[in-house]
Amino acid sequence: MTTKYEALLEKINTIHDIDKAAALLSWDRETNMPPKGDRARIDQMTTLHRLSYEMFTADETGELIEAAAAELADAPYDSNEASLIRYLRRFYADQRKLTPDYVRRASEVSGQARPAWVKARAESNFALFQPWLEQVVELCQEQAELYGYENEPYDALLDKYETNMKTAEVRAIFDAVKKESIPLREAIAARVDAVDDSPVHQPFDIDKQKQFVRTITAAIGYDYERGHLGTVVHPFATSFTRDDARITTRWYPDFLNPALFGGLHESGHAMYEQGTHPDLYRTPLARGTSLGIHESQSRMMENIVGRSYGFWQAHYPALQALFPEQLGKHSVEDFYRAVNKVQPSFIRVEADELTYNFHIILRFELEQAMLNGYLAVKDLPTAWNDKMQELLGVVPPNDAQGCLQDVHWSRPGFGYFPTYALGNLYAAQFYETAVSQNPTIASEMAQGQTTALVAWLRENIHQHGRKFTPGELVQRVTGQPLSHDAFIRYVTTKFSNIYGL
Amino acid sequence: MTTKYEALLEKINTIHDIDKAAALLSWDRETNMPPKGDRARIDQMTTLHRLSYEMFTADETGELIEAAAAELADAPYDSNEASLIRYLRRFYADQRKLTPDYVRRASEVSGQARPAWVKARAESNFALFQPWLEQVVELCQEQAELYGYENEPYDALLDKYETNMKTAEVRAIFDAVKKESIPLREAIAARVDAVDDSPVHQPFDIDKQKQFVRTITAAIGYDYERGHLGTVVHPFATSFTRDDARITTRWYPDFLNPALFGGLHESGHAMYEQGTHPDLYRTPLARGTSLGIHESQSRMMENIVGRSYGFWQAHYPALQALFPEQLGKHSVEDFYRAVNKVQPSFIRVEADELTYNFHIILRFELEQAMLNGYLAVKDLPTAWNDKMQELLGVVPPNDAQGCLQDVHWSRPGFGYFPTYALGNLYAAQFYETAVSQNPTIASEMAQGQTTALVAWLRENIHQHGRKFTPGELVQRVTGQPLSHDAFIRYVTTKFSNIYGL
Repeated sequence: MTTKYEALLEKINTIHDIDKAAALLSWDRETNMPPKGDRARIDQMTTLHRLSYEMFTADETGELIEAAAAELADAPYDSNEASLIRYLRRFYADQRKLTPDYVRRASEVSGQARPAWVKARAESNFALFQPWLEQVVELCQEQAELYGYENEPYDALLDKYETNMKTAEVRAIFDAVKKESIPLREAIAARVDAVDDSPVHQPFDIDKQKQFVRTITAAIGYDYERGHLGTVVHPFATSFTRDDARITTRWYPDFLNPALFGGLHESGHAMYEQGTHPDLYRTPLARGTSLGIHESQSRMMENIVGRSYGFWQAHYPALQALFPEQLGKHSVEDFYRAVNKVQPSFIRVEADELTYNFHIILRFELEQAMLNGYLAVKDLPTAWNDKMQELLGVVPPNDAQGCLQDVHWSRPGFGYFPTYALGNLYAAQFYETAVSQNPTIASEMAQGQTTALVAWLRENIHQHGRKFTPGELVQRVTGQPLSHDAFIRYVTTKFSNIYGL
Repeated sequence: MTTKYEALLEKINTIHDIDKAAALLSWDRETNMPPKGDRARIDQMTTLHRLSYEMFTADETGELIEAAAAELADAPYDSNEASLIRYLRRFYADQRKLTPDYVRRASEVSGQARPAWVKARAESNFALFQPWLEQVVELCQEQAELYGYENEPYDALLDKYETNMKTAEVRAIFDAVKKESIPLREAIAARVDAVDDSPVHQPFDIDKQKQFVRTITAAIGYDYERGHLGTVVHPFATSFTRDDARITTRWYPDFLNPALFGGLHESGHAMYEQGTHPDLYRTPLARGTSLGIHESQSRMMENIVGRSYGFWQAHYPALQALFPEQLGKHSVEDFYRAVNKVQPSFIRVEADELTYNFHIILRFELEQAMLNGYLAVKDLPTAWNDKMQELLGVVPPNDAQGCLQDVHWSRPGFGYFPTYALGNLYAAQFYETAVSQNPTIASEMAQGQTTALVAWLRENIHQHGRKFTPGELVQRVTGQPLSHDAFIRYVTTKFSNIYGL
């Protein structure tokens, strides 16, 4: 006899397959599709998204979830079954709250706002984007009302990316990050010339870059037998199953960092998906639990591992051998310092490990101001520049390098940005816990090795996929809620050392 | 108000999108997917195929087809609307004839027969494959009964690949091909050393091969703005829309033909899809009408264009410039002759332009013998070798190079093989007609140019997609039914010249 849970699982497996096929349509669009294929590709993606949405939000699915929940009322909280039902109940309720009319309008505005943003950024003309951003803000406000919230509208949006996290909690943490890291940033600014990053700014043959990126990503634990490295304009990671989790990167002919640290970053994301437990196969639990936790895994590999001295002691000789002319004259110390240069800049995606968070805090604060109506969209450029001055001490020369730099605001997706900075904080807190529980991790890391670290991540984080909310996971793994402390300790130690503070 | 036809179209568009997403899952599986991703990929493809099948074979779809047909009873025969309804009626009736139980058993047997075939071929041990082929033959017999036929069971199977074509018609044409081209093959055999193909058997750098294949495929009219060239083990072409029709090829480090002629072959297929009329977008009419007509387009580009003297006069200097050591000492005449060497061989996919048909005729005859029960599966190896002797004058040293060489018989797909040879015959007949209607085609071809030829193909064949059956198309384009005459004239002239007969 088929149980209700089995019947539910069959439906969820089908929906999962459709979603993963849509993910492949999207991956291929960025990697292999000829540009003219786009019209049909959008139709194909729209069709699969619609089928998945219709199938999932059907009354029948809700009834099946509740029937399976009743059947499994005694299942332990951390069992796969109970965890899947918790997740499905939440997601079902959320999906049903967005009316088809809202979804249609949001999709239409996003579709038109995107090219308007491209043009506005190209011409550095905010006026071209302003009417679209106004509509995006209205859609965000409407979305918050549809989802509902207890304290403030931003809670409703943040919750979609970082389940159950409250705006007030993020605000307190970000305020602490500001308080503690602005002085560090200023101290470094006074010694900006102490680090020379010219070694990474030289001509580097792209085929050799590819060879090296494959070597170091495999070395940190990204499994190429269950992965694939592709080339794109805007790097990302995606997975179609734990056994096919792909990374992408880009190659600059005269700047090494994007390929190296982009490759390590995306490997961190993909390793999370590769590490989900096989028993979660074909369910929505077989992926990272939130954007913030996902980002903790990518930042861990990019920064805590990839920008460590031990890592470059281990791998720099191979890089030197590939590029003897460029790097023969630079020591591993030179190179380690070069990839750790801290310097406030205008562009978020180019920011260093310390100043990156400021770019996010700025967006987090401006999103709330616009959402709550304290800031009119037309005044965004001024507000942006004021905050840049406050947080980073620099002001962009134009809006293209200011409030027009990111694509994100061409969609009603407020609440997404903070997860980037949360990732940095989670990463530091996880790493501190990992080392305290297994000192081998630290000794291996000093040799540039990650075997024990990855084993710890698999055991404590990866295998669980989406079984627990981010808050539950952090508490479970580190014994306390998310805090800024570990991150501040990490950057203070590291950069005091590098900059001789 | 929405018409019934519009409602039908919306459903058909959705099904089409699902089918094309499934096609991408399949393309990616061959090109980019890491091997371990296969388990999930099979689940994803199975899910999409099931959804498409369920949606299409639903009673509601049949009713919608009939309602739309009634609504459009006065539409001209060659209108897109009437053509789509004709196609859908045929396909709906066919799909409903296969019972879910049959589909399930056929899928199971295919799934298990494939690895058995791989092992049997690797060990050249027919006994390992025999029980599976027996089941495949039984499934083909059952399939023929499910579909139904007027004259002979093979008709029912052939019809699935070459709509409305009858076995008797193919038999008569193939008998004529045998009668007329065996003497030519024998005359050439007596002068086998007149052509030296050693120029194509040398070391050739693969990156340079890629560069050259891109050049010549673009030169014949394959549009890379709406295409993509990938690397695979078993080359194929596929399309996700006329604006994204992809080719694949393979690269041998010491043999030039597979890349060159494989690339041209797959370009011919993809150009057919690229040339379908934009108004057929998102319908099943937006592709080639049958396997045989599709093969006519690939063979046209591979052989009639790609193995012509004019083509190499135009392109050989560039190839020589890429490979001066290998080809500097060989004239264009040498090279033209080398790529046109005729020599009976054991393996179908390596056969030359003249002897290829014999490999197909052999399979066509053996499939009928097995289907009709005249040949027991256990006697296949002997029957195979006897026919090889009769048709090609050579006998393979083992079954791996004989009856175990093709994957096709691990599926219940009898009726597919003949379309390969039909393609050669269609191609010659189309080409003869094209030149008679527009002499510029011949003068351009003598210069290695295909502009007028491709324009003619677009106008007369490509744009129609699947609107007409292959028989209708041939009659419409050439004014007569398919015949072997043009092909025999073509090979006789060409090879008499090359071999000085």
